[in-house]
Amino acid sequence: MKLFSFWRSLATYRVRIALNLKGLVPDEVIDVNLMKGDQRGDAFRKVNPQMVLPALVDGEGPALFQSLAIIEYLDETHPQPPLLPKDPRSRARVRGLAQIVACDSHPLLVPRIREYLEHELKLDEPTRLKWIHTWIGAALKALESNLAGSKETGRFCHGDAVTIADICLASQAAGANFYKYDLAPFPTVRRIVDACMQNDAFARAHPLRQPGAPASV
Amino acid sequence: MKLFSFWRSLATYRVRIALNLKGLVPDEVIDVNLMKGDQRGDAFRKVNPQMVLPALVDGEGPALFQSLAIIEYLDETHPQPPLLPKDPRSRARVRGLAQIVACDSHPLLVPRIREYLEHELKLDEPTRLKWIHTWIGAALKALESNLAGSKETGRFCHGDAVTIADICLASQAAGANFYKYDLAPFPTVRRIVDACMQNDAFARAHPLRQPGAPASV
Repeated sequence: MKLFSFWRSLATYRVRIALNLKGLVPDEVIDVNLMKGDQRGDAFRKVNPQMVLPALVDGEGPALFQSLAIIEYLDETHPQPPLLPKDPRSRARVRGLAQIVACDSHPLLVPRIREYLEHELKLDEPTRLKWIHTWIGAALKALESNLAGSKETGRFCHGDAVTIADICLASQAAGANFYKYDLAPFPTVRRIVDACMQNDAFARAHPLRQPGAPASV
Repeated sequence: MKLFSFWRSLATYRVRIALNLKGLVPDEVIDVNLMKGDQRGDAFRKVNPQMVLPALVDGEGPALFQSLAIIEYLDETHPQPPLLPKDPRSRARVRGLAQIVACDSHPLLVPRIREYLEHELKLDEPTRLKWIHTWIGAALKALESNLAGSKETGRFCHGDAVTIADICLASQAAGANFYKYDLAPFPTVRRIVDACMQNDAFARAHPLRQPGAPASV
């Protein structure tokens, strides 16, 4: 396996957690520096024409793309430990929680959006930060409301075993931390993220523990 | 089944297509008028605290949320006809294509974002339209590049049977049409969307064929 990665990419963080949980170690981790725009270079564009991270090459055939699609692929090809519950209703809840992060929050903060806000819309730094905080917060409110209000919530988002929802929640918390967004109003989110970070598969995958990362953000 | 829906919601369009493909007819379709902000009213907030469409209630238990999670639930509970291929690599490609739409394009155009651009950032109409066209176009370019360049592409996005990727592609095309974004530079996308629209399950689900919709946009 070859993983195209960057320390700061929250979507790649999700895939790294899944790989760690499954005990999979990529043969190669290729750095695509999002801060230098390497994702738009010819080399990576051939791997993933969408020019976004992550991408995973597993054996022959083209790269897999989109973090949730890659994680479900890893779950289907390496079923232990499972990252989704067994029954359809529980699976829908887990996928729904994951998608609050991966569809409705994170895509609003990625490099191309931040660059558009700055260079195309010419927004100043406080206005850009307010944008980021607005959408990080909207997702956290939705997640807290669901997690605190559901009897399905356990030590983790769904019961007491880690699922794709926890992987996404951890990435949401890391993004909040990048932008100094306080998790205090979201006690259930915070409790579950703390539980995740006690798991070495999450801790080792954290952006700030990747090559090239600064000591703090 | 109870579907919370609005004619213009592209995410709900996706769920309507899936229901039609499975031959499922909701007992009730509840209109949540996104243009009047009904999604933020107390009634719907109790159904889906994220305050976004769609939501599906199936029997007892809380509403299901997030269009892709709902569609996979329908596929798991009503397996015929399948909306995903069988092998993991193909499933990853289909889910990845679907997520280009559902994660990286559509969430940038939804009501709350359009309202923020207008009322919080005070952007004028041409600037807001350029934002919308930019992200519709970025996804279409990525989709066209993948679809035109892959030997897996057939009559539909993946082979000759309809999958979740086609459902998302149809919603992307409907969104492009809302904003008069020309599909001419994307011949493979256009060919597949045309094939989809020949299927009554897609055609009947179209936003402009729902109660309350205008004759055109």
